[in-house]
Amino acid sequence: MKVTILGNNSALPAFGRYPTAQVVDINEQLFLMDCGEGCQMRMQQFNIKSDKINHIFISHVHGDHYLGLVGLISSMSLKGRERDLYLYCPKEIKKIIELQLPFALGYTIHYHFLEEGKAETLVNQEKFQIDCFPVYHSVPTHGFKFTEKKRKRVLVPNNLRDYEIPKYFYKRLTDGEDYTYPTGEIIKNEWVTQAGLPQKVYCFAADTRFAPEIIPDIAECDLLYHETTYTEENNEKATQRFHSTAKQAATIAFEGKIKKLIIGHFSSKYKDLQPFLNEAKPIFEHTELALEGMVFEI
Amino acid sequence: MKVTILGNNSALPAFGRYPTAQVVDINEQLFLMDCGEGCQMRMQQFNIKSDKINHIFISHVHGDHYLGLVGLISSMSLKGRERDLYLYCPKEIKKIIELQLPFALGYTIHYHFLEEGKAETLVNQEKFQIDCFPVYHSVPTHGFKFTEKKRKRVLVPNNLRDYEIPKYFYKRLTDGEDYTYPTGEIIKNEWVTQAGLPQKVYCFAADTRFAPEIIPDIAECDLLYHETTYTEENNEKATQRFHSTAKQAATIAFEGKIKKLIIGHFSSKYKDLQPFLNEAKPIFEHTELALEGMVFEI
Repeated sequence: MKVTILGNNSALPAFGRYPTAQVVDINEQLFLMDCGEGCQMRMQQFNIKSDKINHIFISHVHGDHYLGLVGLISSMSLKGRERDLYLYCPKEIKKIIELQLPFALGYTIHYHFLEEGKAETLVNQEKFQIDCFPVYHSVPTHGFKFTEKKRKRVLVPNNLRDYEIPKYFYKRLTDGEDYTYPTGEIIKNEWVTQAGLPQKVYCFAADTRFAPEIIPDIAECDLLYHETTYTEENNEKATQRFHSTAKQAATIAFEGKIKKLIIGHFSSKYKDLQPFLNEAKPIFEHTELALEGMVFEI
Repeated sequence: MKVTILGNNSALPAFGRYPTAQVVDINEQLFLMDCGEGCQMRMQQFNIKSDKINHIFISHVHGDHYLGLVGLISSMSLKGRERDLYLYCPKEIKKIIELQLPFALGYTIHYHFLEEGKAETLVNQEKFQIDCFPVYHSVPTHGFKFTEKKRKRVLVPNNLRDYEIPKYFYKRLTDGEDYTYPTGEIIKNEWVTQAGLPQKVYCFAADTRFAPEIIPDIAECDLLYHETTYTEENNEKATQRFHSTAKQAATIAFEGKIKKLIIGHFSSKYKDLQPFLNEAKPIFEHTELALEGMVFEI
């Protein structure tokens, strides 16, 4: 699983920084989270193939999180897409798209409307699932959580041979079953397999005020993206506008016992982003700036 | 008068090229023509100050000509704009803006809806006027024409002194009047003034099929922007999609006896743009590519 940052600025583009968009790559399936203006240009620039995207998630109906969507959807059709597209978004987004693209596209869009305050599973595949959870902004807003499912156990070839386990049973071993000989003798699963890699979790929490309410949703994840529109000197502005400071994001990361924090959605007030790191790191050391074009492997 | 190219590609952004947008600068008043996705980022990149824009013209309701508009309008408000904005556009644009920006902005937008097939004067100021004229695309589309008004005559100081013309009459001399002494003797205007610079005209014609119908509108202008989505090898596609080839644009320029042609709205089929020039120049020598960031002085 890896995350590419396409846009990391807040509403007003500034200093070459574009509004919010990220792509999560899970085994070459791409998932787009938010789609600010210029997202499709950034995708081209960073060599992200839009035809590998089947699922798009829009956190909330503020322009800097969706204004690139109509262009992207239109471009997908112009490029000859026929495969269905799944769009998880507030219900207003459908009206906005249909007003501007009233004609038939070359493919079908399936809408799933996110409900205010509701956590639910949006995508459930064999190897991973994607959930949404409420965050706390000036309009109904959701965060998204990518969870790899528990990895299967890994076979130990030498032990399989020593215990003469028949091949037809290998798949059940990876699921954790013991093997029983026709004689009734039991071969314990852990004698012939070892644990798979631990499951990985990525959480995307934007936009939100400082909200300890989200800690259960993001707790112990491997990577958390949390918005930091401001630093503490603009703490009041952050509160008024339902945004967070770098200190607040780091506090959530620390309290949530996560492994790594990336921060973005920077206000156009800030040309230099170093103050965000300076403020976050004393509270949560493993913090990085979510710079555009960066790829975070999980 | 000068024109800055902000975007020169057709619907599908490609090779770093953005969709259509141009800014015309007349004595530091800026006029935006079309506003494709990413227009506000390009403006920042090329140091175009959006607060100097009071008039925006949208040629037609195709996404690659307006998808940057909601973001730009929103950003203008975020930056504290209070001055009115004048928007000349097809009527559908108003609905698109109001659906996405349903709250009060910090300033007022005055809409003037362009009517299918109608030529009219949109802006009429002391030193210039801006007209629209129909072009011929798959949906109702207008071109725009910037005309400097006839320059006033220029005073010749030595002659004014020799003829002892009183100062209060100088302004009327620049308007072309003769001066009459109290004795009845007439001083011809051309004895004390000389001709001003010739008036300059810029025409923007996008998107359009090959349309000799527009020649009267663009005839003898100093600079014409004409779309060239394709080269002649895609002549059929151009016809089907109501677009033009480089040869066709050059033919319009030649027949219209204009001074200089710039071409753009290139299809994403073309990485190399040299073939457009190779095709246009044998027909109309003074042709240039409208590359993004280029500034054409008129």
